[in-house]
Amino acid sequence: MESTRILLEANEIPSHWYNIAADLPVPPSPPLGPDGTPARPEQLAAIFPPAIIEQEMSSARWIEIPQQVREIFRLWRPSPLVRAVRLEAALGTPAKIFFKYEGGSPAGSHKPNSAVPQAYYNHAAGIKRLTTETGAGQWGSSIALAGQMFGLDVRIYMVKVSYEQKPYRRLMMQTWGAEVFPSPSEITATGRKILATEPDSPGSLGIAISEAVEEAAGRADTNYSLGSVLNHVVMHQSIIGLEAKKQFDKIGLYPDLVIAPCGGGSSFGGIAFPFLGDKAAGDKRAEKLRAIAVEPTSCPSLTKGRYTYDFGDASGFTPLMKMYTLGHDFVPAGIHAGGLRYHGAAQHVSLLYREGLIEAVAVPQLATFEAGVQFARTEGIIPAPESCHAIRVAIDEALRCKESGEPKVILFNLTGHGHFDMTAFERYFSGKLEDYDYPAAAVEQSLAKLGRYE
Amino acid sequence: MESTRILLEANEIPSHWYNIAADLPVPPSPPLGPDGTPARPEQLAAIFPPAIIEQEMSSARWIEIPQQVREIFRLWRPSPLVRAVRLEAALGTPAKIFFKYEGGSPAGSHKPNSAVPQAYYNHAAGIKRLTTETGAGQWGSSIALAGQMFGLDVRIYMVKVSYEQKPYRRLMMQTWGAEVFPSPSEITATGRKILATEPDSPGSLGIAISEAVEEAAGRADTNYSLGSVLNHVVMHQSIIGLEAKKQFDKIGLYPDLVIAPCGGGSSFGGIAFPFLGDKAAGDKRAEKLRAIAVEPTSCPSLTKGRYTYDFGDASGFTPLMKMYTLGHDFVPAGIHAGGLRYHGAAQHVSLLYREGLIEAVAVPQLATFEAGVQFARTEGIIPAPESCHAIRVAIDEALRCKESGEPKVILFNLTGHGHFDMTAFERYFSGKLEDYDYPAAAVEQSLAKLGRYE
Repeated sequence: MESTRILLEANEIPSHWYNIAADLPVPPSPPLGPDGTPARPEQLAAIFPPAIIEQEMSSARWIEIPQQVREIFRLWRPSPLVRAVRLEAALGTPAKIFFKYEGGSPAGSHKPNSAVPQAYYNHAAGIKRLTTETGAGQWGSSIALAGQMFGLDVRIYMVKVSYEQKPYRRLMMQTWGAEVFPSPSEITATGRKILATEPDSPGSLGIAISEAVEEAAGRADTNYSLGSVLNHVVMHQSIIGLEAKKQFDKIGLYPDLVIAPCGGGSSFGGIAFPFLGDKAAGDKRAEKLRAIAVEPTSCPSLTKGRYTYDFGDASGFTPLMKMYTLGHDFVPAGIHAGGLRYHGAAQHVSLLYREGLIEAVAVPQLATFEAGVQFARTEGIIPAPESCHAIRVAIDEALRCKESGEPKVILFNLTGHGHFDMTAFERYFSGKLEDYDYPAAAVEQSLAKLGRYE
Repeated sequence: MESTRILLEANEIPSHWYNIAADLPVPPSPPLGPDGTPARPEQLAAIFPPAIIEQEMSSARWIEIPQQVREIFRLWRPSPLVRAVRLEAALGTPAKIFFKYEGGSPAGSHKPNSAVPQAYYNHAAGIKRLTTETGAGQWGSSIALAGQMFGLDVRIYMVKVSYEQKPYRRLMMQTWGAEVFPSPSEITATGRKILATEPDSPGSLGIAISEAVEEAAGRADTNYSLGSVLNHVVMHQSIIGLEAKKQFDKIGLYPDLVIAPCGGGSSFGGIAFPFLGDKAAGDKRAEKLRAIAVEPTSCPSLTKGRYTYDFGDASGFTPLMKMYTLGHDFVPAGIHAGGLRYHGAAQHVSLLYREGLIEAVAVPQLATFEAGVQFARTEGIIPAPESCHAIRVAIDEALRCKESGEPKVILFNLTGHGHFDMTAFERYFSGKLEDYDYPAAAVEQSLAKLGRYE
């Protein structure tokens, strides 16, 4: 029986993360402080432990994964690389379609790949508590899990409307021992200020970030953690691509295309960067590799945004980062891929796109659900709405292969299962879902406020 | 790095199921028709395909798993055997605790292990449609998945109260292309009759079974499928124990205890019977093996039921089967382990318990959730409420080892993840869950109606 599920042993979990900062075609633009000068590491020390700050700034190509982190990873890693033979047959394509399945983690997504090392480094630095924000709860549940593994108390500010409407992931966080508060809350000055003028505020990710950062900055025993966008988060996710490379080695194949959903950029960078590293190193197999970041048409930061300095958060608390952005106060439509509604893209993802080394494509919501349903009905797994974006483009590329007759090897990142997103599928089936284009005028407005530093 | 997650390759998926009918200590009592004479295979032919009927009656020790079934299994099998080192450390026990994790299937539980072969055999027999019933939806979602894999139309009668209150698994079934109707429905005579007198009937599993069987019996292109209790279903689940045996072989260990939740009996039989087969064959390693079936105190069919002939379904449509039963019209309390509310136990499980070859223990609801939360906080995975029953007893046995100093090897069946059961955890955390003893008087009443055939 031909193996369509390529597994690795526990001792094949990669020993090092891959840091693409070592292989960028041009030097990255440094983050800037509010005064326009490069941000200094010590400015981050109030909310991040030294090891994380070092990783954020590092240009070392390989950074060792601590033994204790790899031990937690063994709970679900290495994750399987699966050949989607039934999807291939349904499409009638000569392409070989593979997916790396990250939905087998206890939280059901790839997010614990960064939550676990972040909890570890904070624990190692003597930190006792972590704060973070969460929208739909994918990141919050991952940090709740990771905090529990290292004995850290975790406090999560959850956007109030999600807290009330999406109880399942909140309950996961509580099952893993985290405190979850609806944001805005009475706990922080930020929250109290908002509640004073708007007692019924539904909250926003921007407010929740502000609350989490405020608490972390004000307490010596408490740090903050972030689930995407930053360099160290993207690097932690490189374990996905590194494992996939080992798995392709086992079957003597190499992908022609690597496809991933792209919100903040960590799931895309996580699977694509190790292959791009091969390309940078002159690996012949990677010569023609195409890496495609897939974003929603409603939040097309790469394909429609501007490459400029912008804040990482909605409120303008973070250093300014050079990235493709729709403007930090841009609010996308309420699509179901909650993880793909970030206004910008990670710095290195942005730089590589600017330099033409990666591609980006924006896809409308309905087409992604159509692809997700086709995938579920052939390969069994019901994908998260975020993952459906990658599936859409993988199917489109496989159909192009059908036309051209090319037996390309396609790899995509199946970032998570959709068991918490079934109401989105219900809306799709009942015809209640719509496509949203991005509001060009609103983006113009949002971008017009930027531009102090290009 | 010591391997705590023992994996098998795709080509190590067992080639045959193990059928304990070949190794029973006494001959099984045959199912009886309504006239008290042994039921004949042809009586089942209206709703089951020939291969399933043959398996139901077979006493062959090994039955080959069709290649096409194994190909579907490769989507998630072999499932991992995991050593719960973090739980062991938290308990301070010298015991080695292992669990076989079945929650990685697309449906999130062990149920597809039987749904897939059932769909296959029906497809092979030229059947175009399957009907089944479902309560909370674990079985319904599995048969929806399996039907889709073989191009069968699937119609699921879902207990109306679950249909309305538990939309997530219903949406999974629809995502996999199944039709789902709230039961009682206007589709069947049974449903119409009930709705005529009780338009607001919340439905019951008994009614839903009747509807599904009625439709299957009345249409030549349509068969019925069942998710537990019957011999062939339990045998299909033996893949769990067979894989676990191979995995223990790889690390040179053998379990002293095998523990599983027991509702209808397929998850218990599935993991325990292959080891009991070793014992029957005189395997020295299995000499002292203890197999423990864990049931809820609210539905204690093995520990408090009577060993007698009873109907398999609530309405008395099926042949009479010799089993431990609380009476077929016994209705247990509304506990959260929906899968453990069956009034009886599978025939071979019952026979082995009667003969003293397996043990059974009943545990109260709160203690199972306590165990499940401890497991989630150490091993990461949030378990289904059914699985929490096995975890409770595994922890209790590990704590006994702590007292005695014995380094026993404990294996339990982690039948599914709890991502669809988070509201049950909420009720537990908020103190709203109660323990339920079984209503002895109601059981007496229910049993008093039986006894025609002992």
